[in-house]
Amino acid sequence: MSRQPMILDGNKVAVVIKEQLKKRVEQLAKSSIVPCLATVLVGNDPASETYVRMKSNACNKLGIDSRRIYLDKQTTTEQLVLAIQQLNADPQVHGILLQHPVPSHIDERAAFEAISIEKDVDGVTTTGFAQLAFGFGRFPCCTPAAILAILDAYGLPIEGKHAVVIGRSPILGKPVSQMLLNRNATVTVCHSKTNALPTIVRLADIVVAAVGKPNFVQGDWIKPGAVILDAGYNPGNIGDVDFAACFNQASAITPVPAGVGPVTIATLLKHTVDAAFYANGLE
Amino acid sequence: MSRQPMILDGNKVAVVIKEQLKKRVEQLAKSSIVPCLATVLVGNDPASETYVRMKSNACNKLGIDSRRIYLDKQTTTEQLVLAIQQLNADPQVHGILLQHPVPSHIDERAAFEAISIEKDVDGVTTTGFAQLAFGFGRFPCCTPAAILAILDAYGLPIEGKHAVVIGRSPILGKPVSQMLLNRNATVTVCHSKTNALPTIVRLADIVVAAVGKPNFVQGDWIKPGAVILDAGYNPGNIGDVDFAACFNQASAITPVPAGVGPVTIATLLKHTVDAAFYANGLE
Repeated sequence: MSRQPMILDGNKVAVVIKEQLKKRVEQLAKSSIVPCLATVLVGNDPASETYVRMKSNACNKLGIDSRRIYLDKQTTTEQLVLAIQQLNADPQVHGILLQHPVPSHIDERAAFEAISIEKDVDGVTTTGFAQLAFGFGRFPCCTPAAILAILDAYGLPIEGKHAVVIGRSPILGKPVSQMLLNRNATVTVCHSKTNALPTIVRLADIVVAAVGKPNFVQGDWIKPGAVILDAGYNPGNIGDVDFAACFNQASAITPVPAGVGPVTIATLLKHTVDAAFYANGLE
Repeated sequence: MSRQPMILDGNKVAVVIKEQLKKRVEQLAKSSIVPCLATVLVGNDPASETYVRMKSNACNKLGIDSRRIYLDKQTTTEQLVLAIQQLNADPQVHGILLQHPVPSHIDERAAFEAISIEKDVDGVTTTGFAQLAFGFGRFPCCTPAAILAILDAYGLPIEGKHAVVIGRSPILGKPVSQMLLNRNATVTVCHSKTNALPTIVRLADIVVAAVGKPNFVQGDWIKPGAVILDAGYNPGNIGDVDFAACFNQASAITPVPAGVGPVTIATLLKHTVDAAFYANGLE
């Protein structure tokens, strides 16, 4: 293809979401409600600390309260569950985010499940996942929701398209495949045991890379004109897609950084504000 | 292919499962426990009545109690939920099956959700689905579980194969695709909005037909040597696969009847017996 592909600018999409949010935060303020996101971080992984700080800053800029709960890396599953239950019980907290990964001695699934469905703004509970899969979920996982928001913002059709999702994690590959399916895409999920991965990716009108391996997706895997969404965020701000190699094949592509990432954060804020509305019986 | 395909005999697979179950039922009897499946039927659809009777007979033959709850077709969602809650509370009932479809005025999802997870032997609750999707479910939906049981009984590999599932219902297409994915198949889910369906089915090493349209899958859609599982059960005992047309293309195929159907019932019985073990703190 000689035509230049469209760069799907996540910052632009995020700005639009945040502008709408600003008005909704002001609306809540009239009822003296301040939406609040609680982020729980176990241990002191520097990358996780950075993410938590970024989310916190993003909250503050929009007038959303953020509460950061730092727990020692020795924290047990029971202690973590207890901390989450206290946040469940706190009427001032509207959304709860458990920063993952948690240290390996913790039962991450048990910790996720402790988050009440009303405050599960990142859609990590089994109930949240199933509601999403069955098409009636309130808060889908933020990264999958961000991927769909980008497609929608750029008017890229989903229905009838063949989407190939690379990765099957419970918070990314699995939910995004369900969301694309519910939007009437034909969806193929690939993973580490997939044979002839390039051949399968080459079928895709929409490629979602969610595998967590830097520059994994190669240019000759891409059908000319495909739309590429790169949900990878590997150390050094490197995506899962070899951007330079895939650029000329695609009709549209998200960069890393400034692609899916900022929309994920905006989605998290949106869910927190939505949760504040619901919790107060508004809308 | 000139070689004859293997007929995947569901009756044979079911017999093996039931023989194992017999021993487990006897084991329970030593503790004076009789496993019990409660089936709830709303309205008097003759086909549904037949299914309920078949399940009941299958229970009785194995020494499993069956309780049939017939509710008037005018039953409200609230009344149905109440009936289910009474079965939840009854310690003598180990499994609850709501025969579907229910009359259209009933909120089927609300009724399904009323079934407690411990007794959800057909995996119809959102929690049951999500646990299955995340790979730790106790009772996957019976038809999807039957499909995997047939593949396993005949030693047909799943890992690394490309499975194409036609259909995306919450109790069939969606759960079977998650189960195949968790067994390391590459999985494509197709449906009514899929473009070029024959081309996509032709990619499949394993075809799962779960679309509910008689003789829908055609012979020239099948890659030579593919394994075909027909979960369709349309009026007149007709599957979703045009058996005569697909037979010579496949390396293995389930007939209808006597394919997925009997294994589904055996799986339901197995889950009921398992539930009786769990409920009594055994195993």
